[in-house]
Amino acid sequence: MQNFIYYNPVKIVFGKGTIPELAKLIPADQKVLLAYGGGSIKKNGVYEQCAAALEKHEVVEFSGIEPNPQYTMCMDGVALIKEQNIDFLLAVGGGSVLDTVKFMAAAALYDGAEPWEMMSDRGASIERVMPFGAVSTLPATGSEMNMAAVISRKETTEKCGMASPHLFPVFSILDPETTYSLPPRQTANGIVDAFVHVTEQYLTYPVHAPLQDRQAESILLTLIEDGPKALENPRDYEIRASMMWAAANALNALIGRGVPRDFATHMIGHELTALYGMDHARSLAVVLPGLLQHQRDRKREKLLKYAARVWDICEGAEDARVDQVIARTEEFFRSVGIPTRLSDYDIPADAVQKVAENQKKRKMLLGEHGDLGSKEIEEILRLRV
Amino acid sequence: MQNFIYYNPVKIVFGKGTIPELAKLIPADQKVLLAYGGGSIKKNGVYEQCAAALEKHEVVEFSGIEPNPQYTMCMDGVALIKEQNIDFLLAVGGGSVLDTVKFMAAAALYDGAEPWEMMSDRGASIERVMPFGAVSTLPATGSEMNMAAVISRKETTEKCGMASPHLFPVFSILDPETTYSLPPRQTANGIVDAFVHVTEQYLTYPVHAPLQDRQAESILLTLIEDGPKALENPRDYEIRASMMWAAANALNALIGRGVPRDFATHMIGHELTALYGMDHARSLAVVLPGLLQHQRDRKREKLLKYAARVWDICEGAEDARVDQVIARTEEFFRSVGIPTRLSDYDIPADAVQKVAENQKKRKMLLGEHGDLGSKEIEEILRLRV
Repeated sequence: MQNFIYYNPVKIVFGKGTIPELAKLIPADQKVLLAYGGGSIKKNGVYEQCAAALEKHEVVEFSGIEPNPQYTMCMDGVALIKEQNIDFLLAVGGGSVLDTVKFMAAAALYDGAEPWEMMSDRGASIERVMPFGAVSTLPATGSEMNMAAVISRKETTEKCGMASPHLFPVFSILDPETTYSLPPRQTANGIVDAFVHVTEQYLTYPVHAPLQDRQAESILLTLIEDGPKALENPRDYEIRASMMWAAANALNALIGRGVPRDFATHMIGHELTALYGMDHARSLAVVLPGLLQHQRDRKREKLLKYAARVWDICEGAEDARVDQVIARTEEFFRSVGIPTRLSDYDIPADAVQKVAENQKKRKMLLGEHGDLGSKEIEEILRLRV
Repeated sequence: MQNFIYYNPVKIVFGKGTIPELAKLIPADQKVLLAYGGGSIKKNGVYEQCAAALEKHEVVEFSGIEPNPQYTMCMDGVALIKEQNIDFLLAVGGGSVLDTVKFMAAAALYDGAEPWEMMSDRGASIERVMPFGAVSTLPATGSEMNMAAVISRKETTEKCGMASPHLFPVFSILDPETTYSLPPRQTANGIVDAFVHVTEQYLTYPVHAPLQDRQAESILLTLIEDGPKALENPRDYEIRASMMWAAANALNALIGRGVPRDFATHMIGHELTALYGMDHARSLAVVLPGLLQHQRDRKREKLLKYAARVWDICEGAEDARVDQVIARTEEFFRSVGIPTRLSDYDIPADAVQKVAENQKKRKMLLGEHGDLGSKEIEEILRLRV
C-alpha cells in the first residue's frame, strides 16, 4: 500500500425529506446565494422546498448554470457575490452547479487578477474559500462529497480541473426523491460517470490494498445491479437511494487512497467535451474501452481481478478474459443507453488528431505511470472511431 | 435505506515514516500532553520518533494508561491538564490510550461537577472538547477514526461508552511499522475486535443498502485473508498496512450509515470485562456466536448473505447454512488463537446471572430491534458456558 492522507469533512445529510435541514445547516444570519441550473428544480418541487427551508434567510438567486459551466459565467457570479455581500453559497442541482459554486467560492476570495490561474494545470494555490453547501439532485460526479471541480473555457476550448482541501462542501443534502424526475439520459450518464470514477482508481497495477480493491468492486457491483433498475423504475426510492450513495462513494477519495490512480479517461474525455460538446459521461464511455485495450498488458493483473470479481469471468486464457471483460464493460454502457463509439456521436474524422494536439499543448502526461502522451492518446482514440 | 447523517472529519496520515508529520500537525505554540500506556512505545522506537517530532514543542507526559482505562485515572489526567495549562492532547498507543485522551479532552472542559455524567447512559451533553490527535499503534478499536470512547469504573463494575461529534481526533497517524512488535495476543484481539465491529453493523435485518453490505463484506474478507498472515509474519509491512486500514474502516461509521445496527455483543462483552477483566476482544468472541444463534431467525436473511458472500457457503438447507456460518465464524476466532467459551477463561458458573442482573440494572434494551433484555442476555450466555 502506498502512503496516503485521507481527509473528508463533508457532512452528508441523506434521505427523503431532508431538505428542510437547510434551515439549521446554514446559520440564520448568513446572506445566501442560491445557485441553480436551467429550472428543472422549479418543476420537481426542489426549489420550493429550498425556498421554504430558507424563508428566514436573506436569499439572492443565481440561475441558468449550464452543463460544463463556463468561466465567464462563473465570473459573473463572483461579481454578484461581491456586489450583494453574500456570506454563504448554496448549490442546488448536479455536478455542474456544484462545481460552479466551488469555483466561485474560491474565486471570490482569490487575491490574484485572474482566478483561472487556480486551475490545476496552472497551479496558483487556493488559500481560502467562502463557505458553501449543496442540495445534490443528480448522482454522478461525486462533487457533493469531494474537493474537486471542473470548469470550461469556450474561447480556449479548455475544460480543466481544480482541487483543494478547502473545496469540500460544508454539507451536502442527498435526498433520493429529488432524482425521480431525472431524464433517462441523465440517469444513465450518472451511472457511467460513477462507474468510470471507480475504474480509474481500481484498474491500474496491483499494490497490496485488498480493502480498497473490494470497496471499489462493491461500488461497481452496486451500479451494475441497481443502475438498470433506476432506468426501469425511476420512482423506486430504494434504487434511487442506492444510486445516490454509490455515486458519492465513487469519488469521495476513499477507494483511491494508498493505490495508484489513472484519470486518463477523464482527461481525454474533457478534451472531447471541450471540442465537441459531448456529454461528459458519454465521452468517458467512448474513451475507457480504448484505454483498457491500449494498456491491457500493463493493467493485466487488475483487469483479471475485475473480470473475476465483478463480471464472474474466470474461465479461459488470460487474453480471452481480458477481451471479454473489456467487451462486457462496453456492453454495460450500451445497455443503459450510452453509445460507446465516436462515430455514434457524429464526431468528425479529425477529432483523433485534434484531441492529441490539444493534449500535447497542455504538456501533461497521463496514466498511472505518467507516461501517456499525445501519441498514445491518438492510438487510444483510433480504437474508438 | 434508512435516512442518515455521515460526518467524519478525521485527517488520516497513513504509512511508514509518517510520525515526523506530528511537527506540522500540532501548531508549534501548543503545549502538548503526551499520553501513553505501559511503556511498549519506549521499546519499539515510537516514543523516540514522537519525541524527535515534538522537539520544538513543550511536552508534558502522562503515562501508565492500562487496558480498560479507569475513570479515576482519567480524572488524574484532567487535573494534570489543568495544572499544566495543556493546549493539545496527543494519544500514542492503542484504543485504551485514545479513549482516555477522548474522555480527558471532554472532561477538561466539562462544566458539571461529575464528568462521568457524559457517558451515553447518563446523557449529559458534550458541548466542547480540547483538541487532540493520535499516533495509533494497535489496529483494533477504530477509535482513531471515530467519535466514541469507552471508559471503566472499578468501584461500580461499569464499562460505559460515550459519543459526540466533538470526539473525532483532529488527526490520526497510522504507521503500520509501529505494529511490528505487537504481541500475538494483541494482534489477534485486534482482528476479532474489528471483525465484530463489522458484523454488528451488517448482521441485522435487510434494508436495501447493497453498497453498505458489500463494504462490510470487503472488510470481513480482508480480515479473514490477511489476519492470519499478520500472526505468521508480524513484520510483513503490506499485511500490517492492510490490517491497520481495515480496522479503521471497521468502525469509522461508513458501513453503518443507513442500516440497522446491533451492538449487543459489545454491550454484553463490556459486562464480562467489567466483572472478570476479560480482554475486550475475547469477550466479543465468546458472545457473538451466542447472539447469532439466539437471534438466528430474525437475522436469517443477513446470515445467509454473510454465509454465501464471505464464507462461500451456498449449498444445503437454510438452517444448515446458518449453523455452518456461525460455526465458521467461531472457528475463525479460534484459528487466530482466541478461545470462544466462557469455560475457556475460567469464568465462574454464576457469571451468566451476574451479567444479566447488571444489564437489568442499566435498563438498556439491546439489539437492532431494541428488545433484548436480561432474560435474553441470560439465554445467550447460557449458550456460551
